[in-house]
Amino acid sequence: MRALVFDGKLCYRDDWPEPAVSSGEALVRVGFAGVCATDLEIARGYMGFKGVMGHEFVGVVEECADKPLVGRRVVGEINIGCGECGWCSEGLKNHCPRRTVLGILNKDGAFADYLTLPVKNLHVVPDSLSDEEALFAEPVAAAFEVLEQVEAGLGARVCVLGDGRLGLIVAQVLSSTGCDLTVCGRHGEKLSILSEKGIRTVLGVKGLDKDFDIVVDCTGSPSGLSDALALVRPRGTVVMKTTVAERGPVDLNCVVIDELTVLGSRCGPFDPAIESLVEGTVDVRPLITKKFRLEEGASALDYASKKGVLKVIIDVGAKKGVKAW
Amino acid sequence: MRALVFDGKLCYRDDWPEPAVSSGEALVRVGFAGVCATDLEIARGYMGFKGVMGHEFVGVVEECADKPLVGRRVVGEINIGCGECGWCSEGLKNHCPRRTVLGILNKDGAFADYLTLPVKNLHVVPDSLSDEEALFAEPVAAAFEVLEQVEAGLGARVCVLGDGRLGLIVAQVLSSTGCDLTVCGRHGEKLSILSEKGIRTVLGVKGLDKDFDIVVDCTGSPSGLSDALALVRPRGTVVMKTTVAERGPVDLNCVVIDELTVLGSRCGPFDPAIESLVEGTVDVRPLITKKFRLEEGASALDYASKKGVLKVIIDVGAKKGVKAW
Repeated sequence: MRALVFDGKLCYRDDWPEPAVSSGEALVRVGFAGVCATDLEIARGYMGFKGVMGHEFVGVVEECADKPLVGRRVVGEINIGCGECGWCSEGLKNHCPRRTVLGILNKDGAFADYLTLPVKNLHVVPDSLSDEEALFAEPVAAAFEVLEQVEAGLGARVCVLGDGRLGLIVAQVLSSTGCDLTVCGRHGEKLSILSEKGIRTVLGVKGLDKDFDIVVDCTGSPSGLSDALALVRPRGTVVMKTTVAERGPVDLNCVVIDELTVLGSRCGPFDPAIESLVEGTVDVRPLITKKFRLEEGASALDYASKKGVLKVIIDVGAKKGVKAW
Repeated sequence: MRALVFDGKLCYRDDWPEPAVSSGEALVRVGFAGVCATDLEIARGYMGFKGVMGHEFVGVVEECADKPLVGRRVVGEINIGCGECGWCSEGLKNHCPRRTVLGILNKDGAFADYLTLPVKNLHVVPDSLSDEEALFAEPVAAAFEVLEQVEAGLGARVCVLGDGRLGLIVAQVLSSTGCDLTVCGRHGEKLSILSEKGIRTVLGVKGLDKDFDIVVDCTGSPSGLSDALALVRPRGTVVMKTTVAERGPVDLNCVVIDELTVLGSRCGPFDPAIESLVEGTVDVRPLITKKFRLEEGASALDYASKKGVLKVIIDVGAKKGVKAW
């Protein structure tokens, strides 16, 4: 099959073996796959991953023991637990120490004609959602994880730092809680996607008071955490939403002096994510910048890392030689 | 009066003016004062503090509007709020943005014949406590702050990192909750103070599993936080109990990936602290290494920074020319 493989360097292959379907798994034919900041990090060697990249996808089940699922359109949770440890038995497969992660850790991913995932990781996509919207289920779920972890209800003063792909999604999810939200970014045209929806946005952190109950760092930037720590009130919470390959020195004494809570946040629940996409609470359509064919994978990743680019989609289903967009 | 003053450098003065007693304040004649790691940092320029150093003390009230308090032996909370802001009205004077802090921030401290504090900051010392034990009320209160912030009850796997002054106190406070406690330090003779009380201790972090629900960093060392992050389980909590003048680079990606909580912890409640000292749950007597007279203040701080030294006490009340210990 066709696949975009990282093995120290990124290469397109048309002779990659189709994945073997293990017990409890489904074989999914990938329709669209999304390029995420983590993919860009992996292509630079992060996690030491080797294999088929990609973890955001929408596809159709071609083969699985659960027959009614065959032919259905699905998205999927990316963490695969061992199913036997204490973490898995508590439903926390995302933290199973023996987990694999689609396209990130010891499991071939979504930039390919086919992938496999356990049936229990799959979520059927409602008909009203387009493929392109459904593709965002994974990052929207990651945004909903923040709501599982902090009280961001009515009246809470919340700041989202970052106007990239994740920042724009996290902002919309937080906005739906009725909190007093400010989104701080560096790109007027990206922030306008939010301000058109009535969300307060500001360019740059200067002038903001150190007065937020919660600051969510979605910048993916080495300076994001320091900015977040400078904006949160004493006893407030900073949510770290992104890993950073090389973070500069961070003065953490304020964490002690102001008794701050710094909270890491990763993958989240798919059900509210899909629901918010169906209801339109989270509108991801303005986030799609460009589509590429699988054969153009290297160009897709290059393009996704450019300034000003939001979501780049790989149209895996597009026939060879057909321009995707 | 006599005072140990920092003004870019540390100097003993015998002509320092007695502090003026403001409305609501008491004048306290200092009996003993304790040297804390923060004092050592301040003597290196931390916080940019200038004035009389010292914040751990026991003394006798000489003057105050609240007449029954005159002549009583007291210890005192070190944060002085403005009394007017939202923080103060919620009882969180420790986080008042306009606060002063005894011997640390814009308020002359305890290494002197006299100090002043608001009457509401003072706690009367029960007769059964010696001066030397009462002196520890402030650091023991800081240790109790951890219990205000995390659930460290029966069965919780807790690790305290550091066998210095604060580590030995935090360990005893946590031990009293019935949690499954391990204390990790670098000095066998200090750890033996705890192992003699039946607390499990280990030399060095090597060999410990990444399996603790809660890790409390009391090392005051640049590497303490990294060690703590390496020992806490996914979704666990790291409590930062000490500021560090120069912390090396810390890889914080594990905070995101393992969805850790990193919690800063500073000053705490005096009532349970004094109670634990009275009941003997926390035994601070083995922590006293040496006493100095106020005139020997510079030597006292030098000595306190030496390897292997635990608590150094300044016997402020000792007459000039009389050897303190």
